[in-house]
Amino acid sequence: MTYDGTERQAAYLTQQARQIVGEVSLGEFSWPVRVYYEDTDAGGIVYYANYLKFCERARTEWLRALGVEQDGWLDEKIGFVVRHVSLDLRAPARFNDFLTVTVVPTRIRKVSIECVQEVRNVNGQVLCVAEVKAACVNLATMKPVAIPGPIIEVLGRGS
Amino acid sequence: MTYDGTERQAAYLTQQARQIVGEVSLGEFSWPVRVYYEDTDAGGIVYYANYLKFCERARTEWLRALGVEQDGWLDEKIGFVVRHVSLDLRAPARFNDFLTVTVVPTRIRKVSIECVQEVRNVNGQVLCVAEVKAACVNLATMKPVAIPGPIIEVLGRGS
Amino acid sequence: MTYDGTERQAAYLTQQARQIVGEVSLGEFSWPVRVYYEDTDAGGIVYYANYLKFCERARTEWLRALGVEQDGWLDEKIGFVVRHVSLDLRAPARFNDFLTVTVVPTRIRKVSIECVQEVRNVNGQVLCVAEVKAACVNLATMKPVAIPGPIIEVLGRGS
Amino acid sequence: MTYDGTERQAAYLTQQARQIVGEVSLGEFSWPVRVYYEDTDAGGIVYYANYLKFCERARTEWLRALGVEQDGWLDEKIGFVVRHVSLDLRAPARFNDFLTVTVVPTRIRKVSIECVQEVRNVNGQVLCVAEVKAACVNLATMKPVAIPGPIIEVLGRGS
Repeated sequence: MTYDGTERQAAYLTQQARQIVGEVSLGEFSWPVRVYYEDTDAGGIVYYANYLKFCERARTEWLRALGVEQDGWLDEKIGFVVRHVSLDLRAPARFNDFLTVTVVPTRIRKVSIECVQEVRNVNGQVLCVAEVKAACVNLATMKPVAIPGPIIEVLGRGS
Repeated sequence: MTYDGTERQAAYLTQQARQIVGEVSLGEFSWPVRVYYEDTDAGGIVYYANYLKFCERARTEWLRALGVEQDGWLDEKIGFVVRHVSLDLRAPARFNDFLTVTVVPTRIRKVSIECVQEVRNVNGQVLCVAEVKAACVNLATMKPVAIPGPIIEVLGRGS
Repeated sequence: MTYDGTERQAAYLTQQARQIVGEVSLGEFSWPVRVYYEDTDAGGIVYYANYLKFCERARTEWLRALGVEQDGWLDEKIGFVVRHVSLDLRAPARFNDFLTVTVVPTRIRKVSIECVQEVRNVNGQVLCVAEVKAACVNLATMKPVAIPGPIIEVLGRGS
Repeated sequence: MTYDGTERQAAYLTQQARQIVGEVSLGEFSWPVRVYYEDTDAGGIVYYANYLKFCERARTEWLRALGVEQDGWLDEKIGFVVRHVSLDLRAPARFNDFLTVTVVPTRIRKVSIECVQEVRNVNGQVLCVAEVKAACVNLATMKPVAIPGPIIEVLGRGS
């Protein structure tokens, strides 16, 4: 079996890749999210709790872009746990929509970090705004711990 | 094949049923939620976005207990869409925990409803508090519409 | 604030509880599952991967009914991991449907267990059939281990 | 606020983009999937039902690469519904893993399509194999309908 769609796919993906890289130049971190069936509900729109997943993907990729890989910290039982979320849902996203999720850190403390995140559609319309506060904890005890030095260092540089 | 565990199961379920019915007598609606693997994450705790699912299950059952079956309204393209959520995560739940989710309506307007919900563990400890504002919309247009009379009537009685 | 819907709710829940207990008498384990918005997709039906969640809830409750609480085993890094699933999707379930999920063990071996599960609607129509093989593993190493004696004992009695 | 991580992120994303485009040259469609917390469970691994989500994302992107956008068809109440899945889970994926999901169509009929999909880790190890049969249905009636001409045409070219 051969695959004739290769060139079309390559062109598509290159375009998508450019779009991703291009969006970095805006001075805020953003991450693309495509809406699949798994994200929608019988109302025909993205199930609202799933915006929290989209936001977390963007935060994870923001940290990765800053050089922080969280799996190493998970092995040491160190993780960020969300303590508070405020979610403002302004307009619905639908199946197949191509969304952009931003991350702007607003407050970095010894044991916690706060950020504002927006979910936008391809027209730049803001569909959802999330304010998230995450604490650094020891996952074995669930007690707050100081954000590790290597992370706090890049957070300071990235904000 | 026979099933010898029947009596044990019947005893368990009767106990669970009593617990459910019993909790109604407290004067607030509450709904039991068991934590399964699907609800947890690699941090060993309930993934925080899933508390929104638990809260919605409780709101759905609260409406059902008041006599409102939402599938009929969905057929008429009328549904409640969450507009704002504030989620305060105080302590983690874990796999196999048996939780109780409460619903207390705090404000009922022409096109929206607000409520406060708590997620508690078996010791009564409050793990999570959610403030939820949901609007009644025409799902075809996503425009706000007045909450249908039959619903507003029972909401008025139930609050 | 008072809650006038209490009696209606109590009646509903008692009925539901009887339904649960009653279904045990059929000689197979079954567990009720209500379909919420979280379970559906934009096609208007239950998202197919979610049947696997429903099936796992039923297996968990089947083990619990037999006296096996899995969280204790999780603490010892012992867990069941699904190795193979065959899922036959015959008819769709929709928002607000009340489903019944059955568990019939078909093969119990030293390190694995196989069962057949059906998802039925309130009319008894079979919507989905799942064949599931789960292995007992050490979650730290992910290597197969013998199913612990206390579990194998009740499985033997329950099948 | 400025964002100093831009160059690092751009380099990362370009690399990721190359990886995506590069993998097309193998003659099979593949789609990258990053494992986030949302995908894992308390066993520390990807929750098995979530592989079905990963596989569907890849099928959706495979169709998109072939020029098929499913949201237009959804508006006409035409959609693909999974009828049968066989899932073989060989090794676990973990938080933060970077996976590749392949799509190879094996049988294209008038009203259904079958494909084999693999989920691989960065070392090329096959973690999971899925055989999926999806039927084209009228979502209003859930009855099978012929796959629309424009779709069947590109499927024929792409396989």
